[in-house]
Amino acid sequence: MSTKLRAAIIGSTGYGGVELIRLLLSHPNVEITSVISTSRAGVPIADGFPHLNQIVTNTLDGIDIGQLQQKADVVFTATPHGVATELAPKLVDAGLKVIDLSGDFRLKSGEAYERWYKHKPADPAYVEKAVYGLSEVFADEVRGAGFISNPGCFPTATLLGLVPVVSEGWADLSSIIIDAKTGVSGGGRGLSLGFHYSEINENLLAYKVNRHQHTPEIEQVLSRVAGEAAVVTFTTHLVPMTRGILSTMYVNLREMHTEEEIINLYRRYYEGRRFVRIRPAGKWPATKEVWGSNYCDIGISLDQRTGRLTIISVIDNLVKGAAGQAIQNLNLLMGWDEGAGLAFTPVYP
Amino acid sequence: MSTKLRAAIIGSTGYGGVELIRLLLSHPNVEITSVISTSRAGVPIADGFPHLNQIVTNTLDGIDIGQLQQKADVVFTATPHGVATELAPKLVDAGLKVIDLSGDFRLKSGEAYERWYKHKPADPAYVEKAVYGLSEVFADEVRGAGFISNPGCFPTATLLGLVPVVSEGWADLSSIIIDAKTGVSGGGRGLSLGFHYSEINENLLAYKVNRHQHTPEIEQVLSRVAGEAAVVTFTTHLVPMTRGILSTMYVNLREMHTEEEIINLYRRYYEGRRFVRIRPAGKWPATKEVWGSNYCDIGISLDQRTGRLTIISVIDNLVKGAAGQAIQNLNLLMGWDEGAGLAFTPVYP
Amino acid sequence: MSTKLRAAIIGSTGYGGVELIRLLLSHPNVEITSVISTSRAGVPIADGFPHLNQIVTNTLDGIDIGQLQQKADVVFTATPHGVATELAPKLVDAGLKVIDLSGDFRLKSGEAYERWYKHKPADPAYVEKAVYGLSEVFADEVRGAGFISNPGCFPTATLLGLVPVVSEGWADLSSIIIDAKTGVSGGGRGLSLGFHYSEINENLLAYKVNRHQHTPEIEQVLSRVAGEAAVVTFTTHLVPMTRGILSTMYVNLREMHTEEEIINLYRRYYEGRRFVRIRPAGKWPATKEVWGSNYCDIGISLDQRTGRLTIISVIDNLVKGAAGQAIQNLNLLMGWDEGAGLAFTPVYP
Amino acid sequence: MSTKLRAAIIGSTGYGGVELIRLLLSHPNVEITSVISTSRAGVPIADGFPHLNQIVTNTLDGIDIGQLQQKADVVFTATPHGVATELAPKLVDAGLKVIDLSGDFRLKSGEAYERWYKHKPADPAYVEKAVYGLSEVFADEVRGAGFISNPGCFPTATLLGLVPVVSEGWADLSSIIIDAKTGVSGGGRGLSLGFHYSEINENLLAYKVNRHQHTPEIEQVLSRVAGEAAVVTFTTHLVPMTRGILSTMYVNLREMHTEEEIINLYRRYYEGRRFVRIRPAGKWPATKEVWGSNYCDIGISLDQRTGRLTIISVIDNLVKGAAGQAIQNLNLLMGWDEGAGLAFTPVYP
Repeated sequence: MSTKLRAAIIGSTGYGGVELIRLLLSHPNVEITSVISTSRAGVPIADGFPHLNQIVTNTLDGIDIGQLQQKADVVFTATPHGVATELAPKLVDAGLKVIDLSGDFRLKSGEAYERWYKHKPADPAYVEKAVYGLSEVFADEVRGAGFISNPGCFPTATLLGLVPVVSEGWADLSSIIIDAKTGVSGGGRGLSLGFHYSEINENLLAYKVNRHQHTPEIEQVLSRVAGEAAVVTFTTHLVPMTRGILSTMYVNLREMHTEEEIINLYRRYYEGRRFVRIRPAGKWPATKEVWGSNYCDIGISLDQRTGRLTIISVIDNLVKGAAGQAIQNLNLLMGWDEGAGLAFTPVYP
Repeated sequence: MSTKLRAAIIGSTGYGGVELIRLLLSHPNVEITSVISTSRAGVPIADGFPHLNQIVTNTLDGIDIGQLQQKADVVFTATPHGVATELAPKLVDAGLKVIDLSGDFRLKSGEAYERWYKHKPADPAYVEKAVYGLSEVFADEVRGAGFISNPGCFPTATLLGLVPVVSEGWADLSSIIIDAKTGVSGGGRGLSLGFHYSEINENLLAYKVNRHQHTPEIEQVLSRVAGEAAVVTFTTHLVPMTRGILSTMYVNLREMHTEEEIINLYRRYYEGRRFVRIRPAGKWPATKEVWGSNYCDIGISLDQRTGRLTIISVIDNLVKGAAGQAIQNLNLLMGWDEGAGLAFTPVYP
Repeated sequence: MSTKLRAAIIGSTGYGGVELIRLLLSHPNVEITSVISTSRAGVPIADGFPHLNQIVTNTLDGIDIGQLQQKADVVFTATPHGVATELAPKLVDAGLKVIDLSGDFRLKSGEAYERWYKHKPADPAYVEKAVYGLSEVFADEVRGAGFISNPGCFPTATLLGLVPVVSEGWADLSSIIIDAKTGVSGGGRGLSLGFHYSEINENLLAYKVNRHQHTPEIEQVLSRVAGEAAVVTFTTHLVPMTRGILSTMYVNLREMHTEEEIINLYRRYYEGRRFVRIRPAGKWPATKEVWGSNYCDIGISLDQRTGRLTIISVIDNLVKGAAGQAIQNLNLLMGWDEGAGLAFTPVYP
Repeated sequence: MSTKLRAAIIGSTGYGGVELIRLLLSHPNVEITSVISTSRAGVPIADGFPHLNQIVTNTLDGIDIGQLQQKADVVFTATPHGVATELAPKLVDAGLKVIDLSGDFRLKSGEAYERWYKHKPADPAYVEKAVYGLSEVFADEVRGAGFISNPGCFPTATLLGLVPVVSEGWADLSSIIIDAKTGVSGGGRGLSLGFHYSEINENLLAYKVNRHQHTPEIEQVLSRVAGEAAVVTFTTHLVPMTRGILSTMYVNLREMHTEEEIINLYRRYYEGRRFVRIRPAGKWPATKEVWGSNYCDIGISLDQRTGRLTIISVIDNLVKGAAGQAIQNLNLLMGWDEGAGLAFTPVYP
């Protein structure tokens, strides 16, 4: 046991934190040495999460950076926006590897952060240091990094669907429309009437239309891989299911290509990356086909009538969209097999 | 009782037919005199639909046009595609008023029908005669008509969302993208693995991408109200819920208008039409807000960043998207109050 | 309009209150003159309930008994336990007809109320005056009454299933076991982690085992109709759906009867009561078969192997289990047709 | 690889078979060498199950016992009732270890099998040979056995809840009532209107009341551990969720014990058996707390008012109720760690 990497999880009582626990429990190279919740320190974690009975016997810790230096090698921060802003720099300074699952270090522009998140941005020096961990796109930067900013759930699904065609220069950057749909767990475990079962069941709605804070994150990455500014339309919908994101993306092509050429482009781009699976022509992924796993499945259609490309990607928002990708980044960072501890077959049905 | 209009329903054992029964039962001017199912003639309808016990005591009839002439004034045909093709003309010739809920008489082009439906089109003389019953848009044509082709569920939600801005000439017709989502009842009551509960629950998927047969119906109406050809991108998604359609529409404006101007345009367009409700700026409709009712609720957002309009409309696919609009058309056709028998408050929660 | 009975609803922003609004809107003899919410007075009700847009334009009122005397003939109190305790007596004293949907006046024993509800009981004089409105069983008492205590949702489903065999003296009173299951709306609209969508969806659980406050209500009525004390085992389960209660009841017979005799007993007992429907032998009701309606459907099986009776009843908890039965009681009380304003066909599918 | 146990799965395209694949893929000592479907032989399994893309590349095989002798050491038969009747004996005779997930070898009485299953029973010699694999109760018999009859889903949940109190002699055997609830996947992947999403969603119903074929299986085991005949009342309900069984059991005690004594009895009985977790007094398990895992969680309440015991157990019907327990039996049979390949943390939320 003592040769395993020791992991601490801050924010262990949110859905992202609990999912990190589930996934890390089957990681061959990691042991969880501290589960941390400021609001419930001192309570056995299984009290609030009976599914962990006899599996995780830890009592929740409070935050104590000195202790963390003794007990952990890597810290996952799965806290609400605005908490890691202050906390992550201290952990980094304490010599810990940090993987932050919040939005606090994703946007390189503090001004954009403030505008979209309505929070004071983090210290620019640490924002600069944070590597954006979209594993399949920025693996080279993640390898050897010490401070990872883990992507948002919508950006993960969306960027994996858009980056190949955008980075190849085939996309009309002014045409990109993203119609995203998410299950409810993406909204977290906090209480609000909007997440009450009776309000969500047998209901479908759009929310934060043209105002979602993941918009600038998507634009930042697309602009970077395109080498020019991309501005997108991004709409989010809430679907009556617990897990899953499906992102439907519409792109006009700068010049015409066949559907086959485009599918091949995606196959090439993701060659050797086991967690992205490209569907053959005429097939579309469903969120259930990646449920509980770290996969991102992508289907592509080119409409001859409009010359417009429709790209559909699906992920499990809590795995590839959060905890799974965080562990994938840990694997890359440590030089381990990218899929270590992540070989979950999707749960079906 | 004898002064009521006598209605027969063909296809009484599909979801559309059963919903017609539910709605007509509370119509003040109509009595149901025959419920017809070719496959189950002779059986009391409540045998297969226990919710109708002691409410509808009718035995299912077979199709007999001579009998229908004796028993009915109006016939609703809620049959699968390809059945009304032959049947509706005979009913029309028999002097019956006919409201067809299938897709068989919606497309004026037989060639388009054949390409998208993979069926032989109906006799063009009857296609010509059929009035497309999008009640709020074509009420003048519906009034006094004897043969109505009731719109599809997706086209109803989508066209009510697009017609005002398109008919006003403000929309860039080449830019229209429709991302539609539907509950499962829209797929009917037939058996297929794709509708098995275990496959649909906690799942979300796209289907018939760029191939859905409602595409030409949408384009036909948009082209008509625009006075020029419109070609759209149309994607359909299946959502784990029973009822409800939400259509998210993206439109580039030909010239800039304020969000307020656009909302006012919609308010003016639907003035006096009780079943369309326009949300104020910054508010978005949810399918539950129209559940079980004949309403179509619409929300509008103009993104200053992209100059693109996002329009969101919701309906209950079995009411406004099928049986409810059919009755609304009957009301118009008979010169009755448009809302007779349709004053259902949405069921919440 | 002025000849209609004027109704006020206190607690208009809970699920029971909103359902009262939906149902009363289609009642031919009633008009809603005041919708009351202490917490949100002054706000248009449609602000919090967009499904009521353009249907109910009322602004929420506060509680003012003097005003109520001017504006209303009957008041429905759909408040949390403990509120009507004080409020209902004042309304009664003000000469208003009162129909209380809470549990505050159901238990004749103040001691039992205090033990099960953990609240101070109401003034015994008013408890005595309140007529327990299980419409099919106590219609004679309801007729002409001025103060009705409307039954709980579980007791309604359960008692309608048990009263015929218990009042006939055929049931072994020591053997009664009730295994009840409810949708989530029965828990109300308040916020708690236990009603969060992600916690309830794809989940099933028992709660308040042997501790549910509806236990003494069931026992009180069974004891009354049996003429001797009945003590029951009562278990409640939470099912991932919004509406519906299914109660499965197990009863040993004092002496043997055939299944047919028992079904006939039920048919006789409920003869002429349109809202109770008895299934034939070998058929079982489903909650969807009464969804959105005031029906209670009952199926009965006698197991030859064990000599034990299994009775299954279903209701919509917000209609027959709350608002619908309240209106049924109003109809009885006013001497109107029992079903006035309640002719809702169950919504299917 | 060659040192791993080689497993074949017959019935790979049902839910039980697909779940066996998912679980065996993470078993350290097993490799899947053949996935078999008579109806779809020759097709890559991932064609029908896209979630297995790039994970299982096998093409479905037909049944060929000679080949199986070459390719496999153990065969799982996950076929509909009546198929293993003929097939399993041949596999046993071919020297293969056989774990049968169907009901064909569970009942020792051929007469009972025929009465409840409406099928011809299997050859009594093989029925005799088959070891009933309720892992926690009959582990000693499973160890070293070559032919296992894997328990049904309802009997697994129910018997784990009842066996301790029954085998201790504390239960009144004439009093046992089992009110069981299951998710839809327990009904398999076959098509029927009863499993159509629109029929099941927002619905709850009882089925096969007093007629379910799992009744004699439960009685057989209870009678065996009690040493005298037990006859039970058993009711099954269908709940709108995909996975999960919750069994609520009611038992009169022969003589009084405290709740604490009973909980301690259960703790002792399951000491050292990691997959059964007993809740403390006043706590009740939920199906989500075992979702996707091999756990069976049990809660117990003794009602002082009635002297009656209420026991609640939950399992994932496809894991502990089928594929998981089959693998647990394989582990016992092979002398491996009972939990090998089964260390799945329940998936939450």
